[in-house]
Amino acid sequence: MKKGSVKVTPWKVSGKIDYERLIREFGVEKLNDKTLERIKKYTKELHFMLRRKIFFAHRDLNWLLDEFGKGNKFFLYTGCGPSGPIHLGHLGIWIFTKWLQDVFDAELWFQFTDDEKFLFKKKSYNEIKKWTYENMLDVIALGFDPKKTHFLIDTKHAGLLYPEAIKFAKKITFSTIKSAFGFTNNRNIGEIFYTAMQAVPAIIPSVLKKKKIPCLIPLAIDQDPHFRLARDIYPNLGYYKPAIIHSIFLPPLIGVNGKMSSSDTAASILTIDPPKEVERKIKKYAFSGGKDTTKEHRKKGGNPDVDVSFQYLKMFFEPDDKKLKQIEDDYRNGKMLTSELKEYLIKKINAFLSEHQKKREKAKNEIDKFIYKEK
Amino acid sequence: MKKGSVKVTPWKVSGKIDYERLIREFGVEKLNDKTLERIKKYTKELHFMLRRKIFFAHRDLNWLLDEFGKGNKFFLYTGCGPSGPIHLGHLGIWIFTKWLQDVFDAELWFQFTDDEKFLFKKKSYNEIKKWTYENMLDVIALGFDPKKTHFLIDTKHAGLLYPEAIKFAKKITFSTIKSAFGFTNNRNIGEIFYTAMQAVPAIIPSVLKKKKIPCLIPLAIDQDPHFRLARDIYPNLGYYKPAIIHSIFLPPLIGVNGKMSSSDTAASILTIDPPKEVERKIKKYAFSGGKDTTKEHRKKGGNPDVDVSFQYLKMFFEPDDKKLKQIEDDYRNGKMLTSELKEYLIKKINAFLSEHQKKREKAKNEIDKFIYKEK
Repeated sequence: MKKGSVKVTPWKVSGKIDYERLIREFGVEKLNDKTLERIKKYTKELHFMLRRKIFFAHRDLNWLLDEFGKGNKFFLYTGCGPSGPIHLGHLGIWIFTKWLQDVFDAELWFQFTDDEKFLFKKKSYNEIKKWTYENMLDVIALGFDPKKTHFLIDTKHAGLLYPEAIKFAKKITFSTIKSAFGFTNNRNIGEIFYTAMQAVPAIIPSVLKKKKIPCLIPLAIDQDPHFRLARDIYPNLGYYKPAIIHSIFLPPLIGVNGKMSSSDTAASILTIDPPKEVERKIKKYAFSGGKDTTKEHRKKGGNPDVDVSFQYLKMFFEPDDKKLKQIEDDYRNGKMLTSELKEYLIKKINAFLSEHQKKREKAKNEIDKFIYKEK
Repeated sequence: MKKGSVKVTPWKVSGKIDYERLIREFGVEKLNDKTLERIKKYTKELHFMLRRKIFFAHRDLNWLLDEFGKGNKFFLYTGCGPSGPIHLGHLGIWIFTKWLQDVFDAELWFQFTDDEKFLFKKKSYNEIKKWTYENMLDVIALGFDPKKTHFLIDTKHAGLLYPEAIKFAKKITFSTIKSAFGFTNNRNIGEIFYTAMQAVPAIIPSVLKKKKIPCLIPLAIDQDPHFRLARDIYPNLGYYKPAIIHSIFLPPLIGVNGKMSSSDTAASILTIDPPKEVERKIKKYAFSGGKDTTKEHRKKGGNPDVDVSFQYLKMFFEPDDKKLKQIEDDYRNGKMLTSELKEYLIKKINAFLSEHQKKREKAKNEIDKFIYKEK
């Protein structure tokens, strides 16, 4: 999607995003209450990211649930492009994916697209390698089950991925890539080929077990174009089309447009930020929906819909619906000040990060358990 | 090179090839007597393919010999695109490469570009796999030293090749590929990426041993564009530019234009052809430089320059210069008839193939010794 200053591609998200329009333009389905009810049948509770429509769209989720109902279990596939430190914007998808792993007892194939980041960024191979290692720690820290989780690192597992990727590549022309991603002739040939590598993990378990296995991909909607292309190809190669569940973006601190990005560390809260840094960033950068003066705020109230601190609570840090509603009401009617809202968020983030950082340290001894070993 | 009906790209050679023009257009150096003398210093004898300028051009061969003189040994890299049966046109390069291996005591890295053939041909992955196996037998049958010869199969060794290929790919745009290979936007993204995979074996020993090692690539000149592109990149990645030695093409039976091709089996003699089939093909198809009647031939003589049978003797089957000269003279002055020339060639080919086919059978038990094993 690219119109005026709004842009949503796998490599660039900017401008004020109209998710309703994205649904139409990408041709995905809105996640409706009927489908949510079907999920709830299996999970008892709905994750707050479902209740609050943080995951708001899908492809073939009803088919996936049909199959699951028949005893045809699915596996999960998601990933990370390792080009910098992990920030809060990355974590939402993965936290939700971990929940899916737990409630559906699902295998997870987690792709680290180090080739992508090397090819698309002005960064050295070794720098990307370093970030791959660092990013793996954050993923492990979220508590995935090592027995059911397999890390695929594109360069390390190229022996497994490349032979499958060329089967997709053979069916995708440069014309198609141009229109899907807006590439020009000046793109490098690795960038042009790359989408084939991203298509592959959705079939890897089927390749390894020599049978068709359903796949569910949780992702932020900017990654959808990769699969929009590839989904036409999966059945031709003898596999199911993967189902997809799409999330909105966690906004950058400076405002509710675009998505939090690891190349702009000032606008992002990193998982390795110490408490003081979190406090500084929220206080300095988090865009406020409050009024200019306390007096005015008390009188007219704030606007939680554009307030980044409130949005972070909603999307991530306040799973309790009642509490969130209370905060929303208090803020909207002026009872709660921006400074109070920020304090609340800072405490929440720091409590989370304090735990996360401990687990991240421990993860250094657990990496081997997660990296897929070819038989 | 593409002008009128003449075309020389890695995937298409047709028309009457002007090798002098190819030298200018590709920007390679003519292999002159001074360089041949330098080679002879090390090899005592010059291979007849050098004496007869079957290998007629090069890049950086003098630099390679300088390095060799200083004790800096080179390795060899050549390959095979496995899309069909091996014919005589394939063997020249490899026979010469084996000679280089012997006289220079050189390691050989031999690439089977199964990904290329899968991506460029309307053939299935399994069919290409079959041809890879079949073609390996022919290569082994030529007598390469298994201790010094390493087969790289692109899909099998993608774990080794792909991480290096993306380093080349990052420096090559689609614009460059378009002009180097004449590709349009309708090419598939695997075809577009592929040249990066072909660039890699020229550095693999340097990658594995973590030091710069000179490389010599014997190839038919149609493959040069791959390396013309990649040679600019090798030094940027910290490696030597590979040296190259270029051969002309063994013509198809039907005439001295173009090159023998495995997709046109009528015009090719296959390594698995039985003696009767060789006889039939030569008698039926081998373009003759003789006159229409015996009487006229006796009187005016034949033209060995366009006579395919004579060319095969010159390029492949009559290493003895004196004998070849005798045949040339006899044919030119009408003493030797086309039928006699063909009989002579048929005997030569069948003697060669009889041995080759025995060794090819034996090779079935030797494949494992040749396939590179990653440590």
